[in-house]
Amino acid sequence: MRTASICTIGDEILIGQIVDTNSSHFARALEEAGIKVSRMVSIPDNASEIESVLIRELSNNDIVITSGGLGPTKDDITKAVLAKISGSKGYVEHPGQLEMVHRILSSRGLDVLPINLAQAMVPDKAEVIVNRLGTAPVMVFRDICGGTLYSLPGVPFEAVGAMPAVMDDIKKHQELGNILHRSLMVYGIAESALSEKLAPWEDALPSDMHLAYLPDTLTGIRLRVSLYGGDESKDLPRLESEIIKLKALLGSLLYADEDSNLESAIGKMLREAGKTLSAAESCTGGEIAHLITSVAGSSAYFLGSVTSYAVSVKESVLGVPADTVDRLGVVSSEVAAAMAEGVRKLTGSDFAVSTTGLAGPGGDDENPVGTVWIGISGPLGTRTVKYRYSNDRKRNIERFAASALNALRLYIQEALFGA
Amino acid sequence: MRTASICTIGDEILIGQIVDTNSSHFARALEEAGIKVSRMVSIPDNASEIESVLIRELSNNDIVITSGGLGPTKDDITKAVLAKISGSKGYVEHPGQLEMVHRILSSRGLDVLPINLAQAMVPDKAEVIVNRLGTAPVMVFRDICGGTLYSLPGVPFEAVGAMPAVMDDIKKHQELGNILHRSLMVYGIAESALSEKLAPWEDALPSDMHLAYLPDTLTGIRLRVSLYGGDESKDLPRLESEIIKLKALLGSLLYADEDSNLESAIGKMLREAGKTLSAAESCTGGEIAHLITSVAGSSAYFLGSVTSYAVSVKESVLGVPADTVDRLGVVSSEVAAAMAEGVRKLTGSDFAVSTTGLAGPGGDDENPVGTVWIGISGPLGTRTVKYRYSNDRKRNIERFAASALNALRLYIQEALFGA
Repeated sequence: MRTASICTIGDEILIGQIVDTNSSHFARALEEAGIKVSRMVSIPDNASEIESVLIRELSNNDIVITSGGLGPTKDDITKAVLAKISGSKGYVEHPGQLEMVHRILSSRGLDVLPINLAQAMVPDKAEVIVNRLGTAPVMVFRDICGGTLYSLPGVPFEAVGAMPAVMDDIKKHQELGNILHRSLMVYGIAESALSEKLAPWEDALPSDMHLAYLPDTLTGIRLRVSLYGGDESKDLPRLESEIIKLKALLGSLLYADEDSNLESAIGKMLREAGKTLSAAESCTGGEIAHLITSVAGSSAYFLGSVTSYAVSVKESVLGVPADTVDRLGVVSSEVAAAMAEGVRKLTGSDFAVSTTGLAGPGGDDENPVGTVWIGISGPLGTRTVKYRYSNDRKRNIERFAASALNALRLYIQEALFGA
Repeated sequence: MRTASICTIGDEILIGQIVDTNSSHFARALEEAGIKVSRMVSIPDNASEIESVLIRELSNNDIVITSGGLGPTKDDITKAVLAKISGSKGYVEHPGQLEMVHRILSSRGLDVLPINLAQAMVPDKAEVIVNRLGTAPVMVFRDICGGTLYSLPGVPFEAVGAMPAVMDDIKKHQELGNILHRSLMVYGIAESALSEKLAPWEDALPSDMHLAYLPDTLTGIRLRVSLYGGDESKDLPRLESEIIKLKALLGSLLYADEDSNLESAIGKMLREAGKTLSAAESCTGGEIAHLITSVAGSSAYFLGSVTSYAVSVKESVLGVPADTVDRLGVVSSEVAAAMAEGVRKLTGSDFAVSTTGLAGPGGDDENPVGTVWIGISGPLGTRTVKYRYSNDRKRNIERFAASALNALRLYIQEALFGA
């Protein structure tokens, strides 16, 4: 199996100013191609550090992908190291990237400065993949200490945009072993409980198959079964037969038969059925609408939502009866139900979801922090469910929203396909 | 200067399943305390890899912070490596963490399983900092190859929650030079333009003071002035006198006199003035409401919002005239104004903010992707402003929301305190 190392370069990473999202993007692309990422390293804009780390990673891996260190003000450091370790004798101008520098800056109405022109100069041992989204080219150096080095820009949008061409080059030049993956998405069970539930099945897995638990607050648990070194026609049926057993164990905990999330799974069902959705949010404060609308194409089924933080908005906009609030309080099954019914009526949607609870701080004995009532309204009538989570406001908002989306997907599943 | 290395452990990082946000959080805390982060490394759940990387990083640094590799599922092997490299003879149960395991699981209504109980077992050389937010304790190992190792859980909420206690321990055991920091928050100017504006002041700074630019999509630019090796009583007034000069240069670009964000700065003004706010969102899809309600105590001033994704909701709920939409399209100054006025009237708030635009994909010549109209309504009347950003949906939603919040805070400042 081929191995790769991912090296991100830049002082801004090491002082915690930015979160490095490039590494995980690169890692996903490499893994899909069956390449094992052995390590990720972040290093400062320091020539000797860059040199020693790259030499070591190139010696230990087939592929090294770097990003960053190539901006117009500091690319001399990284580029000089790349020239040195590749044994380049000097720099040459790359006409294709030079044209792109002119084109990009002029489209932004900016003058082309000497530091911009310098970005099209590359060490003479570099092969260039033209960066069409920015001024710094992708440089490829073959056979440094036995490894191939791909140098990508650090701007996430440009790095992500460059990866398909980089992966094409990798596939062309490396003999890649086969890897088969299957993911199942689960919501509504703790990782430890799921692990006990699945233990007998997992222990009986063939030795070339491996189960991974990939939990996330918003998406639940991704169960990933991998078969390394497999042959598609011979081994895919073996993998599938294990997936069938696993799905039977999961029952309604399973919400997607692929790598997905709750809002996409809900969107898929609604789009296919031609049904619409609205939301009424109190304690989740817009997070549910934000998640639903983060799915491209969500305007086909999501009509809109009301965030009713104030009681007055619950009453006047959503039509929650004032005496229900007075008698039972805003954190109650009845208010959750009235909010869901209210926004469904207001927007004319087929389904509606609501939340009312206490994300924190605050709370009392009856309704401690972390309490949420979720309402779902639709063709099966209105249902409510209560959850209790922790003291952390940010995490509570995420869990409330995810729990509401899960209650919604269970309701939609039942309404569209039966219990 | 003390140095630190940050090591995150877990196959889920190396396959790109999760973005590692812990490293940047740790780095920020270390950097603020005057510790230089020399490297960040992410390694798989592999005993020999973990051992060799930790030994090398401990040999090269005063401090190593790890996170991850401590979950209850069986592929976690980090603890065995920590026992080995620390020279532990066995495991001991930590009563404080054991109590926490019981308390956390019972508060969630979950059974305590043997794999949960095992989390309170630690190598006998470990000092424990009880993790009050999760079941895996923080473990401290002093003097392994000359460095101190802090092992933190991988769950971001727990890792972030543990850092204050970890930093206290670091400050107690390391001799750190004194650093005084002051942060000012700025929105509405490019870093390069701000840098030109501030150059004369920055060049005249005393040699023990340093200015850092810390830009972020959602919060703008954090300007941090640091005084190294300073004495609080003697040097704080010197630092403050530079901050006064800096504030005068910034004028209305400045929105907070401390490390903050736009939604908190807006909340502070509204709370102090006893005024209220509502929002009407189209293209931002709940992101503005989500940001505003992420501030604890926001229920004191935020009445609610309408996410009007469908045109029908813009018209029926917010009262946007149908002929305005027909004549000018939904991405227009007039619709932004009508949305802000509509939600202000609907909720009875003092101020209202609205967005209508194209986050992408889609768009045309008149309204290319990245176009947003922002509306603000309040005691000064209704104003609108247009911005144009890029092709990236996710980034557009963030920039639209941040631009809307900045327009809102400028309006509120003027309404409450004069231009």
